[in-house]
Amino acid sequence: MIHVMRFGDRLETALHQWREIIGSENVVTGAEPLAAAGTATFSTDHIVTAVLRPGTRAEVQECVRIANRSRIPIYPVSTGKNWGYGSKAPPADACLMELHRLDRIIDFNEKLAYVTIEPGVTQIQLYDFLKGRKAKLWIDATGAGLDTSIVGNTLERGFGHTPYGDHFANVCGMEVVLADGQIADTGFSRFPAAKAGPVYRWGVGPSLDGLFSQSNLGIVTRMTIWLMPAPEYFQAFFFRCDREADLPGLLDALRPLRMNGTLRSSMHIANDYKVVSSIQRYPWEEMGGATPLRPELMATLRKKLKCGVWNGSGALYGTTAQVKEARRLVRNALRGRVNKLQFLDDNKLRVAARFAKPYSAMTGWDLSRTLKLVRPVFGLMKGIPTSQPLESCYWRKTSAPKKMDIDCDGCGLLWCAPIAPLEGTHAVAISEIAHRILPAHGFEPMISLALLTERTIGCVISISYDRDVEGEDEKALHCYEQLLRELNNDGYFPYRLGIQSMAQMNGASGYNTVLRRLKHALDPHGIISPGRYYPGPNLNSQFPEGDQDIVAERAEIAEKR
Amino acid sequence: MIHVMRFGDRLETALHQWREIIGSENVVTGAEPLAAAGTATFSTDHIVTAVLRPGTRAEVQECVRIANRSRIPIYPVSTGKNWGYGSKAPPADACLMELHRLDRIIDFNEKLAYVTIEPGVTQIQLYDFLKGRKAKLWIDATGAGLDTSIVGNTLERGFGHTPYGDHFANVCGMEVVLADGQIADTGFSRFPAAKAGPVYRWGVGPSLDGLFSQSNLGIVTRMTIWLMPAPEYFQAFFFRCDREADLPGLLDALRPLRMNGTLRSSMHIANDYKVVSSIQRYPWEEMGGATPLRPELMATLRKKLKCGVWNGSGALYGTTAQVKEARRLVRNALRGRVNKLQFLDDNKLRVAARFAKPYSAMTGWDLSRTLKLVRPVFGLMKGIPTSQPLESCYWRKTSAPKKMDIDCDGCGLLWCAPIAPLEGTHAVAISEIAHRILPAHGFEPMISLALLTERTIGCVISISYDRDVEGEDEKALHCYEQLLRELNNDGYFPYRLGIQSMAQMNGASGYNTVLRRLKHALDPHGIISPGRYYPGPNLNSQFPEGDQDIVAERAEIAEKR
Repeated sequence: MIHVMRFGDRLETALHQWREIIGSENVVTGAEPLAAAGTATFSTDHIVTAVLRPGTRAEVQECVRIANRSRIPIYPVSTGKNWGYGSKAPPADACLMELHRLDRIIDFNEKLAYVTIEPGVTQIQLYDFLKGRKAKLWIDATGAGLDTSIVGNTLERGFGHTPYGDHFANVCGMEVVLADGQIADTGFSRFPAAKAGPVYRWGVGPSLDGLFSQSNLGIVTRMTIWLMPAPEYFQAFFFRCDREADLPGLLDALRPLRMNGTLRSSMHIANDYKVVSSIQRYPWEEMGGATPLRPELMATLRKKLKCGVWNGSGALYGTTAQVKEARRLVRNALRGRVNKLQFLDDNKLRVAARFAKPYSAMTGWDLSRTLKLVRPVFGLMKGIPTSQPLESCYWRKTSAPKKMDIDCDGCGLLWCAPIAPLEGTHAVAISEIAHRILPAHGFEPMISLALLTERTIGCVISISYDRDVEGEDEKALHCYEQLLRELNNDGYFPYRLGIQSMAQMNGASGYNTVLRRLKHALDPHGIISPGRYYPGPNLNSQFPEGDQDIVAERAEIAEKR
Repeated sequence: MIHVMRFGDRLETALHQWREIIGSENVVTGAEPLAAAGTATFSTDHIVTAVLRPGTRAEVQECVRIANRSRIPIYPVSTGKNWGYGSKAPPADACLMELHRLDRIIDFNEKLAYVTIEPGVTQIQLYDFLKGRKAKLWIDATGAGLDTSIVGNTLERGFGHTPYGDHFANVCGMEVVLADGQIADTGFSRFPAAKAGPVYRWGVGPSLDGLFSQSNLGIVTRMTIWLMPAPEYFQAFFFRCDREADLPGLLDALRPLRMNGTLRSSMHIANDYKVVSSIQRYPWEEMGGATPLRPELMATLRKKLKCGVWNGSGALYGTTAQVKEARRLVRNALRGRVNKLQFLDDNKLRVAARFAKPYSAMTGWDLSRTLKLVRPVFGLMKGIPTSQPLESCYWRKTSAPKKMDIDCDGCGLLWCAPIAPLEGTHAVAISEIAHRILPAHGFEPMISLALLTERTIGCVISISYDRDVEGEDEKALHCYEQLLRELNNDGYFPYRLGIQSMAQMNGASGYNTVLRRLKHALDPHGIISPGRYYPGPNLNSQFPEGDQDIVAERAEIAEKR
């Protein structure tokens, strides 16, 4: 068995000890589940040697201690649904540690609008929890599905659709298990008596939160998430641009509104390819089985689906008067820049659903056709999680199954997410790179832009393909590499990395010197998530001296393969 | 000379090398300037052995390398005006490194609203810079005076009065000199080509910014500060509460407005003692020379000065309609809870200044008397720096000099700044502790509360006294210690520490384990700011093995004293 060979007797010893701590049923070593655990939405190189499923923080600590003593690397994930970035597959051979059994909502304060949760708490779990308590609080959800971890997404610094969209900016008080099994609490939470632990981010002294995001320096087993008070009134708006050339003017017109707080949320703008992939599957018939999608056919699809070259959605939050004034400002800013600017609130949506046809005749806006698309987007802007966007992962398939498992269904998906200053020229530059590179490799240039913060665009470029088609895995990774390289060359760096792209962390900068020193100080045997958000030059170099046996062993295994 | 004894020959060697690098004129060793450098607004224990004034980042690096080789601790400050927390005096014997000569504004982008600045850039310098360019951008200023460093305050996580009041939440892209002289850039700034370096906080991989705030892990020589776009319309508001019992209801009424974004800035609420100290000096005559101020006399002063037991100031930012709606919401929330709610804009202020007397007759609001107080507060809410609040440091003196130097003028000032959840009960609890402890030690309970973030109160309790009165230094420190202890016992921990209170960092928590490991990893010889935001049990314990000679030497000196 490869996984036994991989770390030799040390692994056997560790497995034995782990079984004693968390029970055999929570230490998985079967070939099939291990293969599944190492499967993502693109091809992966590394071996999952076992899966550990601790159920409590104490069990996490004990498992880590065993790993540390045995020098067996572990790769902790929350629920592991890190779609497009590697799912739960590790960037170096390791035992997967799944934390989904740590799923407690530990603290809840409606007045101060926060919850303290464990890594296994999912979007839908927290949403239902608040709904069950009739709390007037909203979460910020991503479109990654109902069952994804909130802590996991936050630690990856993911973003959503409400004013609390920059997830990592809205948390505090982390509990971290270190490589030696010790617990460290961040912020004021390190003082057990501190009343401001769940509400104040910085604490006193150096602020450590950032260290444990996009990191392999510790395992976060708890954090406090701030929630948004439900506004008195909510109104979404949608618009489209019919020409690519409208994009820069649009962004430059929106920037002042984002910067002055009129637009409080990270509104999203998706291009035609992105929108079409969320409504239907690849038009195999029209394309006669060929890929990528011809621009001429996309033009036809745009007409048919009433979709623009760029399609925006945003929302306004506040009292009726606050929203009214924001609407006026949005209308003014977008006048002459977009088509079909439509405002939509809960009432209108209800009426539209009930009277879709007469409404469409009355307003000229074909709601019935777009309702399927609009409803989840509308919901996301209110923090209602949805799995609908996941269907787009089946773009190159003929259909999406009812029960989606995008890792195991052979969906191909790579996400590349550069950040740019919030200026039209940068959006154009990124769009041009995507349009140049993706089709050249046989993929559609699917792009979405979020007004992530007051000053930035967070861009997500999707490479969406069918893993079951031979050669596509390789083509997709090659495309990704070139895309990332060109983006970097032009100054656009990703805010988040897939397991295949951790080399982005390389370079001889002082930042990396610091990171290497911190890793050595906190995890001298390199047992937590080797290679994750860690500079190379090669993954093994992070194993400090004394662990050269691992390096040697790895070379040996590689030979035998 | 004590400073030569302190570090023996090593210091002599270092001084020689420093002089070669930055010139003799920038290496100060005279007894008088060293004594001044070690003087704060309360009594200090530690020796400044030399003052270094590098003029460039390269000089900082070279000076640090020399210090590291020579094992001479250095204590970097920006402009060193850390009033109430120790000014530029070190918490352990060290050479002071002043960075005020690094005063360049390196980058400026009006569209994206940021500047990249060095530690020597002062509030007034940046304010004048923007004014000179007619930029429609506001800084967030503190009341600590015109010549204080923006970087210094931000690294201490200070706060101001505009929507950008939580300073550390509005910066990114730090340049840090490490103990070995290497440079590390944080966020995307570590990639020289990255266009989002000055606009996106997190970068990719672990985010290090927090590590270098309230810290002794590195020396920040550059950072990008985000600026607030000047709003179309600005309106301040002022109110007072005439009964202590009004406080909790007031805060609970304001919380929803702060949380839903109607109140975008950290509005401030000051008690009577705090307000009176900013208008006049201690009423020695009425008190017959006795201290502390009798509550009965305070009641008289309140009447005379038209000041409440609690006095609030806040501001509304936006379009005319946005401000109008916010005003309606503020009015509703405060109805029946406060007295004399007054809204004030630039126009009204101009008119008031011109027609103070008739205006007062017309409205019943005695503007002429309060204008002197109102104008700087009004200005601060627009990011206009002022030195006016510094006059309150002369509270127990007979008058404030024109040219204030509060360290050398014998002003006594200790600030204790606990953070609490934004709920009325907590404000009451903190106020009660201050009212119990300060008068018992002979001081007035001066308190200000800021709605620092959506969920927190940032409280500042001032112990204001006259250092020239014998015994007062000791009494004040004793008072401070008891105050901090009682606040901690009740769960209120300070967001910031004075050099006399770094013991707050103590405790056997995992956080401290991490901090010790990080310090050892980044500064193995403990040469940067020994003792600053660093856990004890005693300051010398942070010198790792091999530096025991410093410990021994220290004991020897203590004996000789």
